[in-house]
Amino acid sequence: MPVHQDMNESVQAEFLKNNAEYAATFKDSDLPLPPARHALVLACMDARLHVEKVLGIKNGECHCVRNAGGRASDDALRSIAISQRLLGTKEVHIIHHTDCGMLTFNNQQLAAKIKEDLGVDVGDRDFLPFPDLHQSVLDDIRTVRESSLVATGTKVHGYIYEVETGKIKVVE
Amino acid sequence: MPVHQDMNESVQAEFLKNNAEYAATFKDSDLPLPPARHALVLACMDARLHVEKVLGIKNGECHCVRNAGGRASDDALRSIAISQRLLGTKEVHIIHHTDCGMLTFNNQQLAAKIKEDLGVDVGDRDFLPFPDLHQSVLDDIRTVRESSLVATGTKVHGYIYEVETGKIKVVE
Repeated sequence: MPVHQDMNESVQAEFLKNNAEYAATFKDSDLPLPPARHALVLACMDARLHVEKVLGIKNGECHCVRNAGGRASDDALRSIAISQRLLGTKEVHIIHHTDCGMLTFNNQQLAAKIKEDLGVDVGDRDFLPFPDLHQSVLDDIRTVRESSLVATGTKVHGYIYEVETGKIKVVE
Repeated sequence: MPVHQDMNESVQAEFLKNNAEYAATFKDSDLPLPPARHALVLACMDARLHVEKVLGIKNGECHCVRNAGGRASDDALRSIAISQRLLGTKEVHIIHHTDCGMLTFNNQQLAAKIKEDLGVDVGDRDFLPFPDLHQSVLDDIRTVRESSLVATGTKVHGYIYEVETGKIKVVE
């Protein structure tokens, strides 16, 4: 495990120090580019969800796409298309989680905060918040399945990760 | 370490089994929602780049946004805006990497492949490939810095991860 310094050290300095330790015992120099498990995980950016650790994914096994909410955004579909067409993945696993920030606001509230803090008018931009965790997983499963950029017959699964217990629960 | 079965086991079954092991020793049930290091990492979805491990990030410390290329896409800016305005992050660390799939195609080639494989015409859609790794990091640093959704004065750093050595090199 990396040795962490006090919280006043710069993040960059800490990353570089930790990475030097990582690289010192690095043994995966010959992994191929295409993911060995032919799978892509789409998950929230939440700091408490270390995807590879939570799912026991080894180096080189799965693509990992993450954004605020783990949403099947247009950009996530771009990533899935590249993953499938160029690197041979065949299934998508979507992970949202309890205590998600996306459950705590709506677009109008965030627009008002951005206006107040940054002086910028974002109009009716959709930041993809959701009021219902289970439903958001179902919605994103459907969005991926119905996307014209995603191959017909792609397996799409959905889960809820519990930040309180470390467990994933299958939605579909 | 999770015990991995043969490659014929379903990915879902493997995730569930690995996660049961993870949850069995889970001790982080009381971590707060805002990232402790007030930082967000934006990195490629590549299967060989386990971001938290490579940077020595502990549970709860940093948001992690990932997509094909680790690009500062419009959706990545959505995630950064939510991270900064609602969850208090103040810096962005961008990581691209050697042997990236995004170096291997251009938009016309991918459009032709999607047309051939899926029968879909994507028009002139930009899938955000890049021909120069160093330049792509610089471009994305600038995109984040200049975005109206990102707070003025946000620290933005860039790195290249070497999949051959496990090392990150600072671009800026």
